[in-house]
Amino acid sequence: MQGKMVTFEGCDGVGKSTQLKLLKEYMEKTGQEAVFVREPGGTKISEQIRSVIMAVENSEMTAKTETLLYAASRAQLVEEIIRPALGQGKLVICDRFIDSSIAYQGGGRNIDVNVVRAISNFATDNLKIDLTVFIDLSPDDAFRTVKKEDRLEAENSDFHSRVYKAYIDEADREPDRIVRITPCIDKKETHNKILEALRNRGIIH
Amino acid sequence: MQGKMVTFEGCDGVGKSTQLKLLKEYMEKTGQEAVFVREPGGTKISEQIRSVIMAVENSEMTAKTETLLYAASRAQLVEEIIRPALGQGKLVICDRFIDSSIAYQGGGRNIDVNVVRAISNFATDNLKIDLTVFIDLSPDDAFRTVKKEDRLEAENSDFHSRVYKAYIDEADREPDRIVRITPCIDKKETHNKILEALRNRGIIH
Repeated sequence: MQGKMVTFEGCDGVGKSTQLKLLKEYMEKTGQEAVFVREPGGTKISEQIRSVIMAVENSEMTAKTETLLYAASRAQLVEEIIRPALGQGKLVICDRFIDSSIAYQGGGRNIDVNVVRAISNFATDNLKIDLTVFIDLSPDDAFRTVKKEDRLEAENSDFHSRVYKAYIDEADREPDRIVRITPCIDKKETHNKILEALRNRGIIH
Repeated sequence: MQGKMVTFEGCDGVGKSTQLKLLKEYMEKTGQEAVFVREPGGTKISEQIRSVIMAVENSEMTAKTETLLYAASRAQLVEEIIRPALGQGKLVICDRFIDSSIAYQGGGRNIDVNVVRAISNFATDNLKIDLTVFIDLSPDDAFRTVKKEDRLEAENSDFHSRVYKAYIDEADREPDRIVRITPCIDKKETHNKILEALRNRGIIH
């Protein structure tokens, strides 16, 4: 009995963390088990890699280095946490995954999207994602509130527009896997939309 | 005027560091310029990545994570140091490079050698190596003296035999690029063999 793999995606400042927190509370309240992880990070080694990626003082990091570090962090997370949990039939919910690399390093940093995908597939050993919740808000709308605390958030608005564009392309490319959730002003309403999407796929009840 | 790229390769404990030290002294004594770098490392970011790779406590690191971290470190070193130096017509001498990934992650860790090569070529943007000095000594002979101070050196002897085998395969595959130097008991004699190989290619005088 194989568990399900769900990822959350979206530009910075769209309310992804808030929604993951609400979902976690819902799962606990209703007694449903899920393993929540975040990228980059989620294991001792992946968190060390995260520190290298995020450090604001590492401004000279090349796009290729960044792409390979995200993939390295992901490889460790998949083998150490995600695959064992799925093997035990558990639901895994991951804050960012392959689509973030396609959006940020592909779209944002102009690395060939097919190469980013190939490197990610190597890192995850072609792990199948059952559902991706894409919180679909353009950076123009999202950016009003975000604090720029790490190297990627601090990029300029052209960068974030390219990231959004790549997300949209990815959602168009895989409409069965990626469900687009337009966030509402009321975060509870967005939360209910997400619950509905997960229920419709039989992932939660 | 493009500079030349030279790499030094070999199993742990074959005297590579000693030979690089002797070569560096020779270059200084004869007033010839060269940029000496080491892998993994050589830039601020690459040294941070090196720390993650080498830490003995990171024993749960997967083979894929290790492969991607070496490539990330290499991408940074190439773009920040090696390409600019070559562009200024300088000679670059690198302690370990792509062949180490092929030998250690390909041979040693059983990652498909073609995948390791593809990831490295992405990382280096297909950087051409003019000459590789392979210090050709089997781990059985080399290992008598090596202190096992990092995660890779601490691997068992089967691992190091596979590494050596992969080096030999690589040397057979690219005989024009890779010159095999069998080390002598007298390190000066080995040094002279290396100088001769570099002179024959017009890399030093």
